[in-house]
Amino acid sequence: MGELLGVAVLGAGHMGADHVRRLDRTVGGARVVAVADPDPARAEAAVAGVAGAKALTEAEAALDAPGVEAVLIASPGEAHEAALLAAFARGLPVLCEKPMVPGSAGALRVVEAEARLGRRLAQIGFMRRHDTAYARLKSVLDGGSLGRVLMLHCVHRNVSSPPGFTSAMLIESSVAHEIDAARWLLGQEPAAVSVLRPRPSPGAPEGLLDPQFVVLETDGGALVDVEIFVNCGSGYEVRCEAVCEKGSARLGQAPGLAVTAAGTVREEVPQDYLVRFADAYDREVRAWVDATRRGRVTGASAWDGYVAAATAEAGVRALQTGTRSTVHLAPRPALYHPA
Amino acid sequence: MGELLGVAVLGAGHMGADHVRRLDRTVGGARVVAVADPDPARAEAAVAGVAGAKALTEAEAALDAPGVEAVLIASPGEAHEAALLAAFARGLPVLCEKPMVPGSAGALRVVEAEARLGRRLAQIGFMRRHDTAYARLKSVLDGGSLGRVLMLHCVHRNVSSPPGFTSAMLIESSVAHEIDAARWLLGQEPAAVSVLRPRPSPGAPEGLLDPQFVVLETDGGALVDVEIFVNCGSGYEVRCEAVCEKGSARLGQAPGLAVTAAGTVREEVPQDYLVRFADAYDREVRAWVDATRRGRVTGASAWDGYVAAATAEAGVRALQTGTRSTVHLAPRPALYHPA
Amino acid sequence: MGELLGVAVLGAGHMGADHVRRLDRTVGGARVVAVADPDPARAEAAVAGVAGAKALTEAEAALDAPGVEAVLIASPGEAHEAALLAAFARGLPVLCEKPMVPGSAGALRVVEAEARLGRRLAQIGFMRRHDTAYARLKSVLDGGSLGRVLMLHCVHRNVSSPPGFTSAMLIESSVAHEIDAARWLLGQEPAAVSVLRPRPSPGAPEGLLDPQFVVLETDGGALVDVEIFVNCGSGYEVRCEAVCEKGSARLGQAPGLAVTAAGTVREEVPQDYLVRFADAYDREVRAWVDATRRGRVTGASAWDGYVAAATAEAGVRALQTGTRSTVHLAPRPALYHPA
Amino acid sequence: MGELLGVAVLGAGHMGADHVRRLDRTVGGARVVAVADPDPARAEAAVAGVAGAKALTEAEAALDAPGVEAVLIASPGEAHEAALLAAFARGLPVLCEKPMVPGSAGALRVVEAEARLGRRLAQIGFMRRHDTAYARLKSVLDGGSLGRVLMLHCVHRNVSSPPGFTSAMLIESSVAHEIDAARWLLGQEPAAVSVLRPRPSPGAPEGLLDPQFVVLETDGGALVDVEIFVNCGSGYEVRCEAVCEKGSARLGQAPGLAVTAAGTVREEVPQDYLVRFADAYDREVRAWVDATRRGRVTGASAWDGYVAAATAEAGVRALQTGTRSTVHLAPRPALYHPA
Repeated sequence: MGELLGVAVLGAGHMGADHVRRLDRTVGGARVVAVADPDPARAEAAVAGVAGAKALTEAEAALDAPGVEAVLIASPGEAHEAALLAAFARGLPVLCEKPMVPGSAGALRVVEAEARLGRRLAQIGFMRRHDTAYARLKSVLDGGSLGRVLMLHCVHRNVSSPPGFTSAMLIESSVAHEIDAARWLLGQEPAAVSVLRPRPSPGAPEGLLDPQFVVLETDGGALVDVEIFVNCGSGYEVRCEAVCEKGSARLGQAPGLAVTAAGTVREEVPQDYLVRFADAYDREVRAWVDATRRGRVTGASAWDGYVAAATAEAGVRALQTGTRSTVHLAPRPALYHPA
Repeated sequence: MGELLGVAVLGAGHMGADHVRRLDRTVGGARVVAVADPDPARAEAAVAGVAGAKALTEAEAALDAPGVEAVLIASPGEAHEAALLAAFARGLPVLCEKPMVPGSAGALRVVEAEARLGRRLAQIGFMRRHDTAYARLKSVLDGGSLGRVLMLHCVHRNVSSPPGFTSAMLIESSVAHEIDAARWLLGQEPAAVSVLRPRPSPGAPEGLLDPQFVVLETDGGALVDVEIFVNCGSGYEVRCEAVCEKGSARLGQAPGLAVTAAGTVREEVPQDYLVRFADAYDREVRAWVDATRRGRVTGASAWDGYVAAATAEAGVRALQTGTRSTVHLAPRPALYHPA
Repeated sequence: MGELLGVAVLGAGHMGADHVRRLDRTVGGARVVAVADPDPARAEAAVAGVAGAKALTEAEAALDAPGVEAVLIASPGEAHEAALLAAFARGLPVLCEKPMVPGSAGALRVVEAEARLGRRLAQIGFMRRHDTAYARLKSVLDGGSLGRVLMLHCVHRNVSSPPGFTSAMLIESSVAHEIDAARWLLGQEPAAVSVLRPRPSPGAPEGLLDPQFVVLETDGGALVDVEIFVNCGSGYEVRCEAVCEKGSARLGQAPGLAVTAAGTVREEVPQDYLVRFADAYDREVRAWVDATRRGRVTGASAWDGYVAAATAEAGVRALQTGTRSTVHLAPRPALYHPA
Repeated sequence: MGELLGVAVLGAGHMGADHVRRLDRTVGGARVVAVADPDPARAEAAVAGVAGAKALTEAEAALDAPGVEAVLIASPGEAHEAALLAAFARGLPVLCEKPMVPGSAGALRVVEAEARLGRRLAQIGFMRRHDTAYARLKSVLDGGSLGRVLMLHCVHRNVSSPPGFTSAMLIESSVAHEIDAARWLLGQEPAAVSVLRPRPSPGAPEGLLDPQFVVLETDGGALVDVEIFVNCGSGYEVRCEAVCEKGSARLGQAPGLAVTAAGTVREEVPQDYLVRFADAYDREVRAWVDATRRGRVTGASAWDGYVAAATAEAGVRALQTGTRSTVHLAPRPALYHPA
């Protein structure tokens, strides 16, 4: 390959700064050329020590900076649609953090814009597809020895939720990961969603419906149930068990170091998704850099981003009405048909 | 104590014969005095080698046999109501296999008969209450360090179902165990049931809705979800995770022997509840014999048997209608109020 | 069978009282007829509530009590030789707690006495042979799919040692279990022992060499290494891994209940062998009662008791001299040849 | 930082080619400038697709290639001493694969040369120090809550050994990892080694003494036992349990995906150290590149390489003589004293 891929990073918050560090030091093959953030201090802080990287306040200016060959979008979700369309207009490959676009209407506009373009430029940051354990699970399921999947039991727990987290965001922001993972593992589309609400935990902020229990039905007749609990207090836990016709496979049992003392065996639970999925983020960005340098687009597509948005929307409706909610999807453009 | 408790066993099928063996050889403090089964050959086979035990064809004759001080009912469910009432009429302590009585109407009659009697004679055979791991789980939950229970995730799998097993029996016969275990662990009563139906497994007999996914709501605001899969093909698995305000506790990870060979670590999964719960059955019968010899009645009550029946009935309604079904319970007689 | 087996229990200490309770209430088929202990108060306490059981101070008086058909020896080790010979003289079947006899010379006298008798009467209480996990391990090894055993890695830890426990007793009393288990699992005899001494733990009493690391070589070329640590402070742990030609098998990973809270997954470690091996003791005594009522003798033999004593003796020599010590065994009498 | 570190890679075999790929694509901050291998075809193959990298046959020519700022030595062990001295002569920082130098005499010459230089240039490739689980274990041990380490139980198994692998190489090449890991975890130096030899496995090549059981004694009174079994047939397994004064900690229980089917729960065992330690290699090289760009030398030192060689030498002596062999170490130069 040789030349390093010149990348503009949009957004210099927690996630954007982490990606700048990753592109500069952890992942080979790329260099950060420009970082844009409306807050100039944050942009400057992100490029400190990164040779040849420019700090800017305007996303479009960053896309137009000399040497930019690709874009990594890590700005807040509301800025994603404009940034994606600007990248499409310039023919720049994009890695866009999830959610691709909040709300299915905007997500559909992105899908239609890319479909008009006639070629894929966008990869969406569903990093679980790059996690070793998820990849193993998919490979076992695809291998066929267990037969078809009948149910997926999922657990998704955070120690605590950030300020301003709403009951709808448990679905839009958190369960979105399970929605994408389920589609990817099963090769099926969501058909309906129900949301059950146990008594809220006193550990959650006043008024937040936490935990929730989400049940997804797919067009292939599979059930996906998800415990989402964003103030569980005890650790970050992601588990997934696929119950199949001939057996089951599960990931997420705490591995690692077992310490025996004072009458118990203890194993650590990670406190944070950046710990649990650190390697998945590295692999995701590495895979994107490698593919982009070869002129390819792989990974989750804008269509995947759209379906996640539309399904989460149906989930929020189910949460609010207390009834089962059907998922309505636009027709899938030919660009996104499986090869 | 001294004298051995004289027991009449009703029913000499698989379970009855097993209990005869248990009372004769495994559990101390009791002796089998009479075994009744409509099939004389089965009754004879069960008492073969059991000194002093008589084989009979009539349940009432067994209750009236000389030396009978207590009754163990292991006949088919339809015979339970008459047997329980006959035991009550004679003032005999009873251990009755589950289901106490099929159908909530008959179960309520038993409750009312015992309430009229004014003292407890019946213990119902929910043997999970006697399993070491369940007992540990209850003790951890009661200890209070994890706060209140918000959700119970349960898995209940059998290798294959016996001939004639119907879609309703997945709830009435199998999920009945989780219904009782949930009530016992939570100290709450069921309020509503929903049943979701993934695509049936091709491993299940034609027409059987297997697996099912049952969601129970309690009057205390907890959710209990149960995967019931009676033709899973791979083993007998019972798991239960309690998700609480401050942490979680789960039982049922396969323990035992780990064999590493040919690139895998393998652990055995038991094939049968008689293997998984062998010790629980022994403990249950031992506890019953011990308590009975001391003139006490402990363990699950006729009220517990009735609530399990009424909840299962609501579950079957939910399965048939595809909607959430409310659980209606008769008022609880004073006899069954917690001390 | 019918009639209950009349048993005399010698010794009413911790273990003896536990066996009285077991024979009376937990295990079917037997009744305690007499209990002998030099301390009359202990003997009385042990028979309290056991109908028909007599408290005595003399072992021989207990053997001669009316109704005695079998003997369970749970007195201190020094009293075992006389008790065994007295039982042999009366033709009474015996279950003798380990150590059969402390010291190989006395153990050999017991072997010779039983050999002269020409029939087996004694079973030695190596209860691990009755533990479910050990039995599974033996069955996997005997099955042959893993090939022959090359090494056994054993761990044996106690929370703390009783008063008066000496450095030699780590081998004689504790490692004795691994010596017997290894012989039973491998079907090979010990050939040599070495004892390595890491720095003693400050948690052990002054002067006690604890932990020790014992390496046993068998006449079949297998190595057995044993960590013995009787003041480990954290729990009672027994693990055993068999490394074979084609794979390995291990037991002893803590199963049971996993509690997740405050950033860790915790599983309990039992604090005591009476907890860990409770079921094994029950099974052992039940198997002895069953076999005895059928006129049979099964389980570990006096020869097994003798070899354990002779090997432990070599181990203590190795501990004291710091060198490898050869195990010398007397010729095996025909009575003990495998069928 | 900015400019990419120019690296010369010596050796283009399996490991060398893997490092070229790692520096080019997986790890940021470096670029491969030259690759030297006596076999021109191998050198050419390694640089194919690596822009700006030159293929050479002479190690010294590679060190002198324009743009070379650091050296990664992955040639066969016999070439290491000359390569290290050549790098020292040029003042180039080095990452040298293990063994640093085969044999303690040559290793000591490297130590003395670097000591004369008066500053550290060499880091030795003991990659376990960069493994997440080992790092966690060290952090728990250093934290002090478990007290001091009394014993380390280690297991090191390979599926099969490469052609030409000798009985001595089980210690020199394989146990060398445990020797370094034990020194690093304990902060103590080896004092003596014993090697026990169970019956060789029929799965090992004729004449190879495999498995072996190595016991290391440290100058701090700790025992380190290592099962090394390089033809175990079933998988690549590395386990380590530290037994401490107040508890124990162990790593290496197979985590990952659990598949339940046909009566067993199965978890995969990796087949290869490149799978098990893939992340550790990445982290090691990344840490080296980062430190070197900052003008620092961290990680295992030439002294660590020397002690591993001297201890392995004592181990081979113990294997050959069948007796305990003392480890003799030269005085440690001030350059290697802990800060």
